[in-house]
Amino acid sequence: MNTKRPSDSYTIMNEIVLPNDTNTLNNLMGGRLLHWMDIVAAIAAQKHCNNIVVTASVDGVSFKEAIRLGDVVTLEAYVTRSFNTSMEVYIEVSAQNIPRGEKYKCNDAYYTFVSIDSRNRPIPVPPLDPETDLQKQKYEGALRRRQVRLVMAGKLKPDDATELKAYFNEK
Amino acid sequence: MNTKRPSDSYTIMNEIVLPNDTNTLNNLMGGRLLHWMDIVAAIAAQKHCNNIVVTASVDGVSFKEAIRLGDVVTLEAYVTRSFNTSMEVYIEVSAQNIPRGEKYKCNDAYYTFVSIDSRNRPIPVPPLDPETDLQKQKYEGALRRRQVRLVMAGKLKPDDATELKAYFNEK
Amino acid sequence: MNTKRPSDSYTIMNEIVLPNDTNTLNNLMGGRLLHWMDIVAAIAAQKHCNNIVVTASVDGVSFKEAIRLGDVVTLEAYVTRSFNTSMEVYIEVSAQNIPRGEKYKCNDAYYTFVSIDSRNRPIPVPPLDPETDLQKQKYEGALRRRQVRLVMAGKLKPDDATELKAYFNEK
Amino acid sequence: MNTKRPSDSYTIMNEIVLPNDTNTLNNLMGGRLLHWMDIVAAIAAQKHCNNIVVTASVDGVSFKEAIRLGDVVTLEAYVTRSFNTSMEVYIEVSAQNIPRGEKYKCNDAYYTFVSIDSRNRPIPVPPLDPETDLQKQKYEGALRRRQVRLVMAGKLKPDDATELKAYFNEK
Amino acid sequence: MNTKRPSDSYTIMNEIVLPNDTNTLNNLMGGRLLHWMDIVAAIAAQKHCNNIVVTASVDGVSFKEAIRLGDVVTLEAYVTRSFNTSMEVYIEVSAQNIPRGEKYKCNDAYYTFVSIDSRNRPIPVPPLDPETDLQKQKYEGALRRRQVRLVMAGKLKPDDATELKAYFNEK
Amino acid sequence: MNTKRPSDSYTIMNEIVLPNDTNTLNNLMGGRLLHWMDIVAAIAAQKHCNNIVVTASVDGVSFKEAIRLGDVVTLEAYVTRSFNTSMEVYIEVSAQNIPRGEKYKCNDAYYTFVSIDSRNRPIPVPPLDPETDLQKQKYEGALRRRQVRLVMAGKLKPDDATELKAYFNEK
Repeated sequence: MNTKRPSDSYTIMNEIVLPNDTNTLNNLMGGRLLHWMDIVAAIAAQKHCNNIVVTASVDGVSFKEAIRLGDVVTLEAYVTRSFNTSMEVYIEVSAQNIPRGEKYKCNDAYYTFVSIDSRNRPIPVPPLDPETDLQKQKYEGALRRRQVRLVMAGKLKPDDATELKAYFNEK
Repeated sequence: MNTKRPSDSYTIMNEIVLPNDTNTLNNLMGGRLLHWMDIVAAIAAQKHCNNIVVTASVDGVSFKEAIRLGDVVTLEAYVTRSFNTSMEVYIEVSAQNIPRGEKYKCNDAYYTFVSIDSRNRPIPVPPLDPETDLQKQKYEGALRRRQVRLVMAGKLKPDDATELKAYFNEK
Repeated sequence: MNTKRPSDSYTIMNEIVLPNDTNTLNNLMGGRLLHWMDIVAAIAAQKHCNNIVVTASVDGVSFKEAIRLGDVVTLEAYVTRSFNTSMEVYIEVSAQNIPRGEKYKCNDAYYTFVSIDSRNRPIPVPPLDPETDLQKQKYEGALRRRQVRLVMAGKLKPDDATELKAYFNEK
Repeated sequence: MNTKRPSDSYTIMNEIVLPNDTNTLNNLMGGRLLHWMDIVAAIAAQKHCNNIVVTASVDGVSFKEAIRLGDVVTLEAYVTRSFNTSMEVYIEVSAQNIPRGEKYKCNDAYYTFVSIDSRNRPIPVPPLDPETDLQKQKYEGALRRRQVRLVMAGKLKPDDATELKAYFNEK
Repeated sequence: MNTKRPSDSYTIMNEIVLPNDTNTLNNLMGGRLLHWMDIVAAIAAQKHCNNIVVTASVDGVSFKEAIRLGDVVTLEAYVTRSFNTSMEVYIEVSAQNIPRGEKYKCNDAYYTFVSIDSRNRPIPVPPLDPETDLQKQKYEGALRRRQVRLVMAGKLKPDDATELKAYFNEK
Repeated sequence: MNTKRPSDSYTIMNEIVLPNDTNTLNNLMGGRLLHWMDIVAAIAAQKHCNNIVVTASVDGVSFKEAIRLGDVVTLEAYVTRSFNTSMEVYIEVSAQNIPRGEKYKCNDAYYTFVSIDSRNRPIPVPPLDPETDLQKQKYEGALRRRQVRLVMAGKLKPDDATELKAYFNEK
């Protein structure tokens, strides 16, 4: 299986915020954005493993700025690390009121996907080779985020979360 | 401001999985479920604070079982803890193939909402008074989950995450 | 075939009124509500017969209160009586402007469903055993409503509509 | 206010049955059809009164034939009678599998609409002058159907339902 | 294969402009109208050839009048000429603000469809026999429009576009 | 008004083909693609003029390859030429079956948009300065395509279509 780079899975998506996507204050509802993030991240994960993927977990989604009706939302996604049969995908969301020219970062998140065959069984995915400093930093962080997920879900003992403990101590 | 109980915000929603909600293997796509969870959780948060709410963060969503085309998805949500202007909401998702009679738990998650006024400014929310053991346990855990969010987002030093450290040590 | 109770089929659904669900006065359009009532009633009917169901008829839907954009609509449904291969389902709809705290009843209706096999042929459904006074009252009324349907559709002679005649005379 | 004829409000609509409109047997779901019938009937009612209208009641919807995925559904609607501020609209639905050439009648229904001003208050509608025999027959029947609605809803005593009693006796 | 007339394929569709169909000025977005035109034209083409059809090309769509939120859009379509395995369909769009009573023509367009079998291979379509003067005029123009398409797409040399050259010279 | 380059308006969009986007052969319907092309092209036109835009005309859309259910559709758009108050936008569409790894070009098209103010009145747009050879070629062709539109719509005499005549003679 050939090693892939983050640029191999890089995917960009643009959406216009329509009335049905907004709450009564004309701001984009979080649920719609979570849905769009899942689509762009799933495409990125598919490009990495050239297979069907299913969402396995979602973490660290933080909504910073309200996105307004009529604004253009830009979502960018790429794989940050692959594990045995799963991949962590980073998604960054920005929005723009084009007539006013403003572009503002809205939020980012990490989604994890599992590569499956046609009977829903997990299958191995290619390794990832990060290139830029930012990609390497996200590659390192992926292990820590994974241990947080496992500890919080009660599937890993805090003592065995070696990466996480190192992170806590070094800071 | 009157104290509220988890039962005051308890909300239930049922949805049928339609073709457009599924991937090419006829399983519910994660993004659609994230969207539904946001809606049911936002209704629960609104019931707690009697105000407009916006999604602030999403954590710990883990997809365990594939949900099939035509199955009925049941989402239950209630507020687990309120902070100054925000509320953590727990959502539990199960699905059922009614002709076959099977009901299976699919996943759960924690969404956080902020109560806002008509100018998008955060406003205080009522305190929560948990009643059952499970509610009390989730009430305690909410602080820990909040510290994980803040530490992972770089907004809180690990040393100051007192609840989290206690949790790591006691296990 | 085991007798079922109304509580076995009881189903609840919550929906938020979005812009596309409203007319130019920002009120929920009747057609959207008819659609939601069909979904919640179909789930209730499925729970009663543990089978696929199709809508057979709709009667007595009366829209009393306009439901506003952004309000939360709550639909509750349960089977009121089963006939040979069909079931009558009662649906009650209320709505709530949560920030204002108002909850108001909007309308109710009776939908009838037929249980079918995979070749679209009707199959028998379990009998219903009503428990509360209200459930018994609806159970009785179901026969009368059925005769109205048949008489109005020209499938039953008024003379043979014995339940209906008794009802007209006693009042 | 000028008298209108049924042909003034006659409206036709065609829709293709898409995957999301169908149940797991690939048949059009009743709720979707109820929604389409509401739209075509509302347009017909608007043409009659040249005003905004809201759905007031739905009766006598009977689903006879399953409509298949990919079929073209044709809905025809016109006003059958106007009362003070309301109008009864008749809707007839047929469907067609065009490659096979079959066209089959599926169902019909009566929807009632109220004409309202911009503050949601009922306003008078023009009288209707039926022309053909079928239109006259539906015009007569409208009074009877209205009394059935009122009696079944407990708003009219059976003794006062003069049209309805005459209908029961003559048959 | 029997000759068909334009009236055999004549199809009419009505749609209400909903919030999600509009831009921030409350006008119908062009893309939504292009979608509706494709649906009504595809039904017309299917009626002509009694087969499945796929869109082959779109030309000469010109948007003249802004269509407003809440207006009723009427689309009329019929086949103007058939070639070997393809058909040109003319679509005319008008809109109406019913409370104000205004009806205004919005735009028209020509879509071309190919008739295909279940393996996506083109199959012959019946010839068309135009009847009215307008139908004959559109029948003649279809050849010219086809040559424009082919020349502009680089598939036909201008010298070989005999119909088109005649048209240019005669004017 | 500052001159813009094609790269200033370059916009990319990715969409997954869902069941409701397909016909009964599981191919993407033309109307859905026309809708997506309108959205991506409108975003590109907005980026060029930093204003609200409305679709003015659509030409030369040619559907070459059937796009399959589940495939990822990539749409790329940029402004090819600006006129007084309008802009021509080129859109290129490709699709990919990611598990199979195939990427294939599907079609391209030219949409024209008008820049408007908040009262729907046309306003001037910045000039365009093409850079690459392909961009220059499209810049030249835009004038010719505009004359074809005007001649075919009967708004320009063939004799006055100087660019078009030159094109016909040189080939």
